[in-house]
Amino acid sequence: MRIVSLAGGVGGARFLRGLQAAAPDAEITVIGNTGDDITLFGLRVCPDLDTVMYTLGGGINEDQGWGRAAETFTVKEELAAYGMEPQWFGLGDRDFATHIIRSQMLAAGYPLSQVTEALCARWNPGVRLLPMSDDRTETHVVITDDTGRHAVHFQEWWVRLRASVPAEEIVLVGAADAKPAPGVLDAIEAADVVILPPSNPVVSIGTILQIPGIRPALERKPVVGVSPIINGSPVRGMADACLTAIGRETTAQSVLDLYGAPLLNGWLVAEEDATTTHPGITVEPHPLLMTTPETTRTLAHAALTLALNLANKPTHP
Amino acid sequence: MRIVSLAGGVGGARFLRGLQAAAPDAEITVIGNTGDDITLFGLRVCPDLDTVMYTLGGGINEDQGWGRAAETFTVKEELAAYGMEPQWFGLGDRDFATHIIRSQMLAAGYPLSQVTEALCARWNPGVRLLPMSDDRTETHVVITDDTGRHAVHFQEWWVRLRASVPAEEIVLVGAADAKPAPGVLDAIEAADVVILPPSNPVVSIGTILQIPGIRPALERKPVVGVSPIINGSPVRGMADACLTAIGRETTAQSVLDLYGAPLLNGWLVAEEDATTTHPGITVEPHPLLMTTPETTRTLAHAALTLALNLANKPTHP
Repeated sequence: MRIVSLAGGVGGARFLRGLQAAAPDAEITVIGNTGDDITLFGLRVCPDLDTVMYTLGGGINEDQGWGRAAETFTVKEELAAYGMEPQWFGLGDRDFATHIIRSQMLAAGYPLSQVTEALCARWNPGVRLLPMSDDRTETHVVITDDTGRHAVHFQEWWVRLRASVPAEEIVLVGAADAKPAPGVLDAIEAADVVILPPSNPVVSIGTILQIPGIRPALERKPVVGVSPIINGSPVRGMADACLTAIGRETTAQSVLDLYGAPLLNGWLVAEEDATTTHPGITVEPHPLLMTTPETTRTLAHAALTLALNLANKPTHP
Repeated sequence: MRIVSLAGGVGGARFLRGLQAAAPDAEITVIGNTGDDITLFGLRVCPDLDTVMYTLGGGINEDQGWGRAAETFTVKEELAAYGMEPQWFGLGDRDFATHIIRSQMLAAGYPLSQVTEALCARWNPGVRLLPMSDDRTETHVVITDDTGRHAVHFQEWWVRLRASVPAEEIVLVGAADAKPAPGVLDAIEAADVVILPPSNPVVSIGTILQIPGIRPALERKPVVGVSPIINGSPVRGMADACLTAIGRETTAQSVLDLYGAPLLNGWLVAEEDATTTHPGITVEPHPLLMTTPETTRTLAHAALTLALNLANKPTHP
């Protein structure tokens, strides 16, 4: 069985672990969000790709869900001692090595997809991890503060400001000219089913969907999504701030409508959101909290089962 | 009083500490060797400049004489876990921060002299530290091994091979086109005296002397050198391997002849080498071992006193 999954960071990576447990023999291709990527200290940092790679490769800090286990912060402290900015992004020493290698390979002319493959050769994540695009795109957030209305990098809004300043607009800079990374469209084309984990619908999944060609390819496939919202609250993170920025409510219904048809064929929601509906989309209630490996596996299994059932429905091409 | 000193790494930096103690009110400009510089993992590393900066700024590992105190090696271990080469150069986590900042500033277009000044703003070394040149030069060593006769970077010969393979030639690549860094010739011009510490005469002092314009400027000044050789052995390091490579014996006499006149006016040697002579150069015996701050200060004081005496001799312009 061939599965394609889109993924943001922590939530997506945890879900993928459940998906691997639910379908140990499946060939899973993960299309990772790179809109969060940022250049810090001259080094290219890909937080979502790394979170997936570290999580599936056994290197993640399990407690916080991102960053390396047993991490130290000597380089960061030294950079701060020199007065270097920014100091609000917590790059650890182990993590630095990843960014040093990535930056060196990018500078040598390798595309991000090949760099990611090279890094994964160490981690063996058990999935094929592809960036959504080799072209540089960056999510910027328009805010108004003392200095007026201006755009900041997504990480600055998310990490430094903790999304406390309202986002007036969220823009994926470079999206119009970006091409899907090599392998992305082929993987979707070859997929039996596609699963959208409960990643952020705006700045993770929504970002991937903005790369020209990806959404139309997905629309030809049986796609099941897992709601990132339970009873009006994000499962994790600050999806509410992102949904508000694009004029949407923070509800399972709102995200369902955002994805809509013909992209989605199935939608898993919490019991509390069982009344959620959308024409042409099968909605199923299921416990959504990924609190243990077993609940996570069960959730992924439910998404996969629904997708396979929908794939076999004669109404679907 | 204005003093100019040339400097390599460990020995030069230690001597400079003695010079600061011997002349606490002097304005000292240090012209640092950059022939050892190397790009590792995409980062520009300047071992000699950093050794001077850390030593005079209080950040050095006192036991080994180079690298940072309380250093850790997490980034290096992680790079090795990815299989990255080279693994023979011991960059520490604290040290990495310095190279990250340097590389970022160089990439932004700042010349090395300005980068060095920016880094020194943190360390306050108490001297003005200038690279010999903002132009990139690199010391390469010609060796013959299983793969034939070829050139390797100085650091590969020095650190990886521990100078165990005979150097057939030592070449400063880029020397002919290099210009002294801004401030270098002015500092020499304004100097009352110039001191050559017991740094490596071939790959440290000898390298600096190869930058067009520096040697002629020094020849117009009272210059006193401190022998890096005592009784046929290097005070520290592997100067013998370098001297052999350029067809010289490892003796105080040999180094004296290498520098020669009109560059040198005075030469400090160990008691064992008191018979060393050269026409036009005043040779004085003095204990050369820099085993304590006090012996180091006394040595620097002797070099400075000799230089000042020679500066006042009517025979010197």
